[in-house]
Amino acid sequence: MKLYTSPRAPNPRRVMMFMAEKVITDIALVTVDINAQAHKADAFRAINPLTTVPVLELNDGRVLSESRAICTWLEGQFPDVNLMGVDANERAFIEMADRRAEWYLLVPIAQVIRHTHPGLAPLEQPQFPDYGHAQTVKVRDYAERFDSLLQRQTWMAGDRFTIADITAFCALEFARLMKFSPKAEGFDALQAWRDRVAARPSAVAI
Amino acid sequence: MKLYTSPRAPNPRRVMMFMAEKVITDIALVTVDINAQAHKADAFRAINPLTTVPVLELNDGRVLSESRAICTWLEGQFPDVNLMGVDANERAFIEMADRRAEWYLLVPIAQVIRHTHPGLAPLEQPQFPDYGHAQTVKVRDYAERFDSLLQRQTWMAGDRFTIADITAFCALEFARLMKFSPKAEGFDALQAWRDRVAARPSAVAI
Repeated sequence: MKLYTSPRAPNPRRVMMFMAEKVITDIALVTVDINAQAHKADAFRAINPLTTVPVLELNDGRVLSESRAICTWLEGQFPDVNLMGVDANERAFIEMADRRAEWYLLVPIAQVIRHTHPGLAPLEQPQFPDYGHAQTVKVRDYAERFDSLLQRQTWMAGDRFTIADITAFCALEFARLMKFSPKAEGFDALQAWRDRVAARPSAVAI
Repeated sequence: MKLYTSPRAPNPRRVMMFMAEKVITDIALVTVDINAQAHKADAFRAINPLTTVPVLELNDGRVLSESRAICTWLEGQFPDVNLMGVDANERAFIEMADRRAEWYLLVPIAQVIRHTHPGLAPLEQPQFPDYGHAQTVKVRDYAERFDSLLQRQTWMAGDRFTIADITAFCALEFARLMKFSPKAEGFDALQAWRDRVAARPSAVAI
């Protein structure tokens, strides 16, 4: 199997961290240089016409894109350690936590950065800086809610580490590009959670 | 069980259409008037602090938000008709199709409407009309890709109707507010697929 990836981007990092938690080592990593627009080149379009990374190419030739869908497939193949729920009931609650991390943390952070950071201009055309800057209010507002949540529980989905922690951690790592720090904002529980995740071997950036 | 819903909004409609496909009839529907900001009132914040609809309140008092997570839970409880995959392998490929419908159809359509339509001003503050109008290019671009896909296969995820068709259909229904019509754009395969879905009993707006 091959994972087409771009390690510094948040979505590929989600999948790589998910693989690291499960100690999956037999998937070849193929780096796609998105800053050089390699994801828009014909060679990559032949693999994923939607030009997104990551993409998992299976041994039977089938191709799977969309980070969370790739994780669902990997969870089926490598069920230990479980990160997405052992049955439909738990899967639903972890999916809720994961979507909250994605929609209320990763998405607003990405909108700020994609529309305001000069380095992202090649990937987001046209940029709308006023729109981007306005999303910083949402980032802080939602971060405060996650801080409240983490005052009551240890992990994003409750009492164990799951895919939701991976999504939220990769979002905060990406948020460095907008110089957002939970500690500087006074979100101590969010910072303490972030530091717990950062201490895991899977959190080391590749 | 209770489903807090706002029938005309696309995400609640996804869940209601999912329930209709499975002929789930024993969940009480509680309408939340989002135009009157009822989702921001204390009574609803006590149910879902993130103030989003839909929300499913289970018989044991637990509360589940996020449309797709609600569907995952319902799929576990009401496994027939299967709409999300019978095992992790199929679940992953249907999730890919569903996320594509969400990210490349529903999200850009929603961004256009939330940032340009006067009727959405109470829900999206501040609106950025220039940003919103620019997303119409993405809507057309992605709609063209879905049109290509549907020239090769009958349904969004392949050869059977799934949750991905529900997401994409609710997106196109919402797109009426931006006066987007696949037929008018020359996307005949997308229009024919839309008409196939619209003919299903579950597609009737509540």
